[in-house]
Amino acid sequence: MAADNRSPVTVIGLGAMGRALAGAFLDNGHPTTVWNRTAGKGGELAGRGATVAATVTEAITASPLTVVCVLDHRAVREVLDPVAGSLVGRTLVNLTNGTPCQARETARWAAAHGADYVDGGIMAVPPMIGRPESLVLYSGSPEAFTAHEPAFGALGTALYLGADAGRASLYDIALLSAMYGMFGGFFHAVAMVGTEKVPAAEFTPLVVSWLNAMIAGLPAMAKAVDSGDHSTADSNLEMQATAYVNLLDASRDQGVSTELVEPMRELLDRGVTAGRGGGDISALIDLLRTEPTPNGSGR
Amino acid sequence: MAADNRSPVTVIGLGAMGRALAGAFLDNGHPTTVWNRTAGKGGELAGRGATVAATVTEAITASPLTVVCVLDHRAVREVLDPVAGSLVGRTLVNLTNGTPCQARETARWAAAHGADYVDGGIMAVPPMIGRPESLVLYSGSPEAFTAHEPAFGALGTALYLGADAGRASLYDIALLSAMYGMFGGFFHAVAMVGTEKVPAAEFTPLVVSWLNAMIAGLPAMAKAVDSGDHSTADSNLEMQATAYVNLLDASRDQGVSTELVEPMRELLDRGVTAGRGGGDISALIDLLRTEPTPNGSGR
Repeated sequence: MAADNRSPVTVIGLGAMGRALAGAFLDNGHPTTVWNRTAGKGGELAGRGATVAATVTEAITASPLTVVCVLDHRAVREVLDPVAGSLVGRTLVNLTNGTPCQARETARWAAAHGADYVDGGIMAVPPMIGRPESLVLYSGSPEAFTAHEPAFGALGTALYLGADAGRASLYDIALLSAMYGMFGGFFHAVAMVGTEKVPAAEFTPLVVSWLNAMIAGLPAMAKAVDSGDHSTADSNLEMQATAYVNLLDASRDQGVSTELVEPMRELLDRGVTAGRGGGDISALIDLLRTEPTPNGSGR
Repeated sequence: MAADNRSPVTVIGLGAMGRALAGAFLDNGHPTTVWNRTAGKGGELAGRGATVAATVTEAITASPLTVVCVLDHRAVREVLDPVAGSLVGRTLVNLTNGTPCQARETARWAAAHGADYVDGGIMAVPPMIGRPESLVLYSGSPEAFTAHEPAFGALGTALYLGADAGRASLYDIALLSAMYGMFGGFFHAVAMVGTEKVPAAEFTPLVVSWLNAMIAGLPAMAKAVDSGDHSTADSNLEMQATAYVNLLDASRDQGVSTELVEPMRELLDRGVTAGRGGGDISALIDLLRTEPTPNGSGR
């Protein structure tokens, strides 16, 4: 692909994801510089045209845009703290897994060092990077996002969520929690039918069509949450709490741990106790709110 | 609709679901007899052509097929035990919520009284009954299912799962556990973004498309379960266990209870401890197997 009109990009961190990001930039014709804390990870990328920088400063100063994707928040700061001065006037995009608090802290750190900052959350595994179904969430400096949007397009579908640097991480983690909830339900379901030697592959198409049907009901729950009107004409919270006992009984009968399904029983029961039994189960969402207990994840 | 070629059906139990079932039979031209333990529930159905039986024996003997849909297993037995003799040579279809153990116990009870037995699980709310998207699972006597399949078709899409009377309930409960897992993940996700005043309706379309994408990965997990080969080239169990800490930290930071997401952390950690960290998270399903602990749910 013609590289003349593509802006230079630097990728710091060459784990599986960092390599995929650098590869996608290369595939889209961006002059790409790479660096990794431990050497020897850049060979394949060099063969595809990447410049392997000798130092992190050399890497950062090679491009107006540096994308960092390392193990965790601590690694971000360990790598960048010593070379903060080289980021002045440049854009730092942090695609490392982290929390909203960590993202905002890094944004403050970047601002203090004269760098534009964009935080991001990658909703994809490495082999998906560069394909349209690879969704990457961004938030932070709107000017920096706009300036580098063409480069972000090389990684997949870019979704900008606003100026708050923590927003992308918040969405990332919220989407992951939705995914793990679904996975947990699937695990329990497959374990249940497995006790009767039903092959998972035989049962799963039914789960897939059932979940697709149930997903169609989520927008109505969202509307109830936003309006505060959880009234329902159908199966209300109390009826579901009553029926849920069968789910637990059957799990014990079949020899399947109730560990993944027990918390929903407790929440349903709490909903009934809180006087919400006559409404839709969407009313349970309010019951999950607690006092924020900052635990130092920003450090 | 012409009623001449439709077989008579009896519906016992006129809660919201029982009334929907009877209504669907009436809509499809089945001569329909109804009965409820407490009187006064059959008026609207009588207006649509149903016969309201004076006694449960009168109800059962009015049709070759009796569908029972009452509160729970105990109610089934309380209603039918005194009139078991009237079921001889007839088919009893039990669509009451219950466990596989309860279904099998009722099957044995029916067999002892000379009745054919089919158990079922309704994967729908009452307003859906009669529409193709209303899925009803059946298992038990294959002859009885085949003989009455046209009547079952009046209720929605009928899926027969084999001769074991407990199978429909097993699938029913497994599908419900998958649904509640997904709902729990959605609840947590909406609570998370809600802490930053993101309207649920703004966030939910992103969840819907994300979950649809993730559902597409379930068949591969099912294949791994069946083959026992949980190897993966992508994000392995240990990497996910490590990243999951961010989900918990962010939840606490934002003031969202971790009650629904904590069990998955424990399961991920157990997976790593069990030496499965290098494989796909589908390996966690095996860890949910315990010793069956019959708890008397069949009583």
